[in-house]
Amino acid sequence: MSPVKGNALIGQSGGPTCVINQSLVGVIEEVHKTPSIENLYGAVHGVQGILNENLIDLMKESWDTLERVAITPSAALGSVRKKVTREECEQIFKIFQKHNIRYFYYIGGNDSAETANIINELAQESKFELRVFHIPKTIDNDLLETDHCPGYGSAARFVTLAFMGDNYDNRSLPGIKINVVMGRHAGFLTAASRAARIDPDDAPHLIYVPERVFTKEQFLDDVQKVLDRLGRAVISVSEGIHGPSGEPVFSTGEVDSHGNVQLSGTGALGDFLSGLIKNNLGKKLRVRSDTFGYLQRSFPGCVSEVDSYEARMAGRNAVRYSLQEDWDGSVIFRRTANGKDYKCVTEIVPLKKLAKNTKSLEDQYINLAGNDIKEEYLDYVLPLMGELPKTGKFVGYKL
Amino acid sequence: MSPVKGNALIGQSGGPTCVINQSLVGVIEEVHKTPSIENLYGAVHGVQGILNENLIDLMKESWDTLERVAITPSAALGSVRKKVTREECEQIFKIFQKHNIRYFYYIGGNDSAETANIINELAQESKFELRVFHIPKTIDNDLLETDHCPGYGSAARFVTLAFMGDNYDNRSLPGIKINVVMGRHAGFLTAASRAARIDPDDAPHLIYVPERVFTKEQFLDDVQKVLDRLGRAVISVSEGIHGPSGEPVFSTGEVDSHGNVQLSGTGALGDFLSGLIKNNLGKKLRVRSDTFGYLQRSFPGCVSEVDSYEARMAGRNAVRYSLQEDWDGSVIFRRTANGKDYKCVTEIVPLKKLAKNTKSLEDQYINLAGNDIKEEYLDYVLPLMGELPKTGKFVGYKL
Repeated sequence: MSPVKGNALIGQSGGPTCVINQSLVGVIEEVHKTPSIENLYGAVHGVQGILNENLIDLMKESWDTLERVAITPSAALGSVRKKVTREECEQIFKIFQKHNIRYFYYIGGNDSAETANIINELAQESKFELRVFHIPKTIDNDLLETDHCPGYGSAARFVTLAFMGDNYDNRSLPGIKINVVMGRHAGFLTAASRAARIDPDDAPHLIYVPERVFTKEQFLDDVQKVLDRLGRAVISVSEGIHGPSGEPVFSTGEVDSHGNVQLSGTGALGDFLSGLIKNNLGKKLRVRSDTFGYLQRSFPGCVSEVDSYEARMAGRNAVRYSLQEDWDGSVIFRRTANGKDYKCVTEIVPLKKLAKNTKSLEDQYINLAGNDIKEEYLDYVLPLMGELPKTGKFVGYKL
Repeated sequence: MSPVKGNALIGQSGGPTCVINQSLVGVIEEVHKTPSIENLYGAVHGVQGILNENLIDLMKESWDTLERVAITPSAALGSVRKKVTREECEQIFKIFQKHNIRYFYYIGGNDSAETANIINELAQESKFELRVFHIPKTIDNDLLETDHCPGYGSAARFVTLAFMGDNYDNRSLPGIKINVVMGRHAGFLTAASRAARIDPDDAPHLIYVPERVFTKEQFLDDVQKVLDRLGRAVISVSEGIHGPSGEPVFSTGEVDSHGNVQLSGTGALGDFLSGLIKNNLGKKLRVRSDTFGYLQRSFPGCVSEVDSYEARMAGRNAVRYSLQEDWDGSVIFRRTANGKDYKCVTEIVPLKKLAKNTKSLEDQYINLAGNDIKEEYLDYVLPLMGELPKTGKFVGYKL
């Protein structure tokens, strides 16, 4: 069968990443080569932009603009955090019919896959020919089916570089340092900090992910042991650490429209843990905390090259897939080679496979005590980050 | 006169920077070419290492190690925060005599210049031939006499990149965002965030430096105006902002050995300002804060090339100066050309000129309302940061 003629629409959703615009530009590039797609509309702020018919014409943007946008962090079309109701999906589908939208590309997390899936079902029910493709992105790396998510590699790189630098900072002026890393439910990004440990005594000395229960007693005991051994301690903590019944270790109490407690955009957890250490291990200890915050998802200038390349490829391939056959789905990555020869290819899986649920950091990567990440995780994460700077220390020959 | 024969000693002091080891390696490189210097000792943790005679032999380190150390943030020899007494300086001087130290290089801020100056005076009183050189470093950029300080350009680059990324993040998911920047007394680093504003509506929309009095009333009024105009606001705040009588706007109350209130290594100021906005401008506003923290001084992988080059040059030239004539002093930078042809040369000024006092951000760069930095500051700061990524936005052609 020949591809259906009509317009295409693209939107971006959820928290930004450093490479989400690579996928967007990948789609634009490929649409330029595709005669059956007449125009490509950009939805401003995702589904909200579709509902408001706030659409822009992406085919008029110059190649210079596109290349600049591609290396720019965060959603160039604007993003949105919105759970779409079935009624809104129906409204969106009507707008698609009105504008003769025959191709829909949606870049986002599992909520976006779900939205795409409902719209796709509506089209099928109405026998309106529509190709729907979800292009994954998330620094949390928690989507099902795919080897990893575009956006994770760059965030992992940022976190690793931050810990590498902080390791040297802490060696030079010893003390206790807590660094809070993003990741509400999944510990992938916090686990990436393990890559900063080049020599056995390098930071991070302790790593806490939300996949394990956090207890203050074990934490204090762990910190004291590192302190006794090294006279310093750098600690990697996920913002999502929680007690036995799932309650956050500390929160500001603010709740967003999804009912999620606010974890990011505040230094409260780090400061709470600093206070905990001082009050229990010694008032005079030099304890500091940094919360890496939004820089993890939007810091330009040290993005992973692999991640950029793959995010662009995901966008390009989504368009190619949408022309080849009568299918819809999520673009996923499958690793075909690892290590120095690392290579990933894209594949398509049904939209509903990524919708709704997410995954956690696999248990095999977490040590028994729940305070460290095993070395095996490096095999998984290092190829995603690109080359790290070759820093070093003096041997320190005695006089 | 021919240079005196003997050993040399080098130490590092104060807060880390990303290029402090470039200066260190610059000295080591140059000493290798200098027959009159027999050996070069590294003091582990600055003056503390001299007092404890904890010295290492730097001439045995391999060139590979040296090149790795050069690109490594933070003090590779270990640093120290210690005000040295006159008695300790006398003790240090005795250790110099014992080890036949004839060349002393000290990398640090104004306290280090002061220590170097006292040791130099002791040597002169005893007619012990000693060349003493201070090599400046500080991300605060607050040393007198010099055009700028090694370490500032890289920290300024980090802060600018962080605001560039956060501008796009905040455009994509609008809200109010407060970013707290290091700089207890001097606003240079906070002012550098101005370089992220490429288009007039780009972040930061408000900038508060410690050179002006901060009032909550003006702050709230400023934020409301930006919010009315743009529907979002990204705010750059120095950690050192204070009220009319110099009291910090918010502090944890912790005081260090110098009597300085703890400002870094906590998210408390940012969280306090977030609360202030919510309580006064609307509980439902999406307000977030990030405190950039130690990453500003030790994040590897996006260091300013100009800064690296100049820090290395400062180290090399310190050794050259110490051989040429019977003088001592601080290595300073003088700008001989600006803009695209930017060039700095090093000069020597007497140690006491940089000791004791520091400087503030010049009034000419701060706007009348005290909530922004003037465009003129870009002429000063941009050449120090190296090239910034060429990010971009869609034109946004309407359908």
